[in-house]
Amino acid sequence: MKDNKVLQIPYGTKDILPGEARAKRKMEDKVAANFLTWGYDEVATPTFEYLDTFAIGNGGISDESMKFLDRNNRTLVLRSDMTTPLARMVSTRLSNDAGLKRLFYIANIFRYEETQAGRQCEFCQAGVELMGAEQPTADAEVLALAIASLQAAGLVDFTLSLGHIEFLAGLMEEAKITEKDAKAIEKTVLEHNAVGLEQIIKHLDLSTDLKDIFNRLLFLHGGEELIEELLGTVKNPKSRAALQNLADIYNLAKEYGVARFISFDLSLNRNLDYYTGMVFEVYTANMGFNICGGGRYDSMMKSFGQPCPATGFAMGIDRIMLVLERQNNLNINSDWDVFVAWNHNRVHEAIKLAMELRGQGKTVKLATITTTEVQALELQKINNCNFLNYVK
Amino acid sequence: MKDNKVLQIPYGTKDILPGEARAKRKMEDKVAANFLTWGYDEVATPTFEYLDTFAIGNGGISDESMKFLDRNNRTLVLRSDMTTPLARMVSTRLSNDAGLKRLFYIANIFRYEETQAGRQCEFCQAGVELMGAEQPTADAEVLALAIASLQAAGLVDFTLSLGHIEFLAGLMEEAKITEKDAKAIEKTVLEHNAVGLEQIIKHLDLSTDLKDIFNRLLFLHGGEELIEELLGTVKNPKSRAALQNLADIYNLAKEYGVARFISFDLSLNRNLDYYTGMVFEVYTANMGFNICGGGRYDSMMKSFGQPCPATGFAMGIDRIMLVLERQNNLNINSDWDVFVAWNHNRVHEAIKLAMELRGQGKTVKLATITTTEVQALELQKINNCNFLNYVK
Repeated sequence: MKDNKVLQIPYGTKDILPGEARAKRKMEDKVAANFLTWGYDEVATPTFEYLDTFAIGNGGISDESMKFLDRNNRTLVLRSDMTTPLARMVSTRLSNDAGLKRLFYIANIFRYEETQAGRQCEFCQAGVELMGAEQPTADAEVLALAIASLQAAGLVDFTLSLGHIEFLAGLMEEAKITEKDAKAIEKTVLEHNAVGLEQIIKHLDLSTDLKDIFNRLLFLHGGEELIEELLGTVKNPKSRAALQNLADIYNLAKEYGVARFISFDLSLNRNLDYYTGMVFEVYTANMGFNICGGGRYDSMMKSFGQPCPATGFAMGIDRIMLVLERQNNLNINSDWDVFVAWNHNRVHEAIKLAMELRGQGKTVKLATITTTEVQALELQKINNCNFLNYVK
Repeated sequence: MKDNKVLQIPYGTKDILPGEARAKRKMEDKVAANFLTWGYDEVATPTFEYLDTFAIGNGGISDESMKFLDRNNRTLVLRSDMTTPLARMVSTRLSNDAGLKRLFYIANIFRYEETQAGRQCEFCQAGVELMGAEQPTADAEVLALAIASLQAAGLVDFTLSLGHIEFLAGLMEEAKITEKDAKAIEKTVLEHNAVGLEQIIKHLDLSTDLKDIFNRLLFLHGGEELIEELLGTVKNPKSRAALQNLADIYNLAKEYGVARFISFDLSLNRNLDYYTGMVFEVYTANMGFNICGGGRYDSMMKSFGQPCPATGFAMGIDRIMLVLERQNNLNINSDWDVFVAWNHNRVHEAIKLAMELRGQGKTVKLATITTTEVQALELQKINNCNFLNYVK
């Protein structure tokens, strides 16, 4: 039996065991309560969508998506992110609601991945979308909420790397870089490949200033002094607007009391095509992948016929649990308050007692067979109950 | 754009909108807390399993299941119930744990169905499995927990129909009915087709007593007096044991204080092959389908190499929400406590105020642009906020 697939689970998926699932629900409830406090309302979408929805939302469907056919041979995709389904939902179901949309979700996402600890093919994300506001106030709110949400989940130490899609775009325009070279540069940036980047830059006909900044690109990390320095050297209006936007967001983040978590990284380039403005990722010790990421995506809603600026983020619930576990900060509790056991013919009284204790809010396990008091003490231990109530 | 599938969602799926999702999380949390109180620990399994797992667990894979291929061309199935994955999980991951297993889940389930209100292709179930106990105490606990869980979800009026797989099986054996006729009889029972049943019975060579009880089969509904009456007439030991088992369960249910919800229905025959003992379904006004169902399934665990008696139930979260909505008992609240708006240059103070209010546990929406006080009053309404705090 061990040889066949009856007992196996699919590649990249996992069971969530007793204790773990309890800790996960607790964390999700804390995160959800925090989202509510910030004015975000929960929504949910189907586990799968038509391929067409994802194709247009993401500007093309990725190879990592899990596809299948419905009974009419139309292609369905297990959702590979939640931003696209939410944009689809807002366009069709909430387009008549006035005002901003502040929405959140906690949902499982599906992608074919080479799995590692913290990278699975099915994983859980909690995230928000703030739709209808183009101001830095919206980006700062989303940034501050991301940090507050990570704290609500139990994390203490982490760094939020903040960048802007338009910074590099402006430099490319200024340097009149061909589309082909631009793609190559973006690839080296995404891969943090400094040598590769230098190779490309070397062959381009650029001013010394521009060559200099391209070569520094992967090392443009720092605090607000970096933004000020770059505003002193960078000439093109697009990159300058990006820098100014980051400075504005950062100043608002100070009021939220979260600036200490933020570090600029102007090479940050998220692996999703739909971002148009500020982007960020959150990293922590004990985890090689980001635990949270997001940014502004002002063009996506247009794909669904309802142009609208938008900004948001998603955090990885499983990754955060793994970080907390590695820090010994995850309370995987599988304890119970009371074990109620009973002597011969005393089951009726035992049931009444168990129900009384439950009514008082106690978690209670009730024996299903008659036992001696000695056996009951043993069962109490096996059942992880803190107290025994034996009905004689 | 309206003509293509970009804006559509797949057949039988739905979006859960603001307010609805909030109500759903509240309900799920109440149900989960109640499960904990009764000593049940949460677990989760992958959204899909290998076809082999479902094929062996259910004794054959149904046509309603949604299948797809992984990258190695192995067939995966979106889970079409949770009992099979839990049996698989317990067999592989928890088989070394001593004692009973009391587990619960809240999970989405997938089946191709002709959709109606209350019947969707993707739907949410909350359920429990109690593994390792064969006694009526276990069945009574599960029954009482089902009722307590429906109450925790907000339902007041409902009826639990209680039957037993072995009652009809015993009658068939006693009557020496052929396998072919037995299948036909089971089909008419499942369809509540009294005329069809009578047609089959008419042609069988049965004693008057047996013919009589087969003809009454679909009408064997009632209270404990029905069980007593049948114990006086039914002769075969299998059916008698089933009746005695039901009487025992009912007597324990009295101690739980839930007997008033229970009505016997000896024609009850659930549409899943794995049941072996008592079975039940819960019905309520305002819904043509059962809102909860379960029973004993002592053979399934053997399929996974770990023979073990088991009993459990699942309740339909979406169906219960629909019932409550139809009864005007579902609080679909999309309100917020405070809208914080701000005059020119006062955004920093507004952020501080919003954070202060959030720290006090208030739900707060913060304006993203400067407004006049009059505009702020309007935005407060649009944003469903109960109070306005305008920073002058």
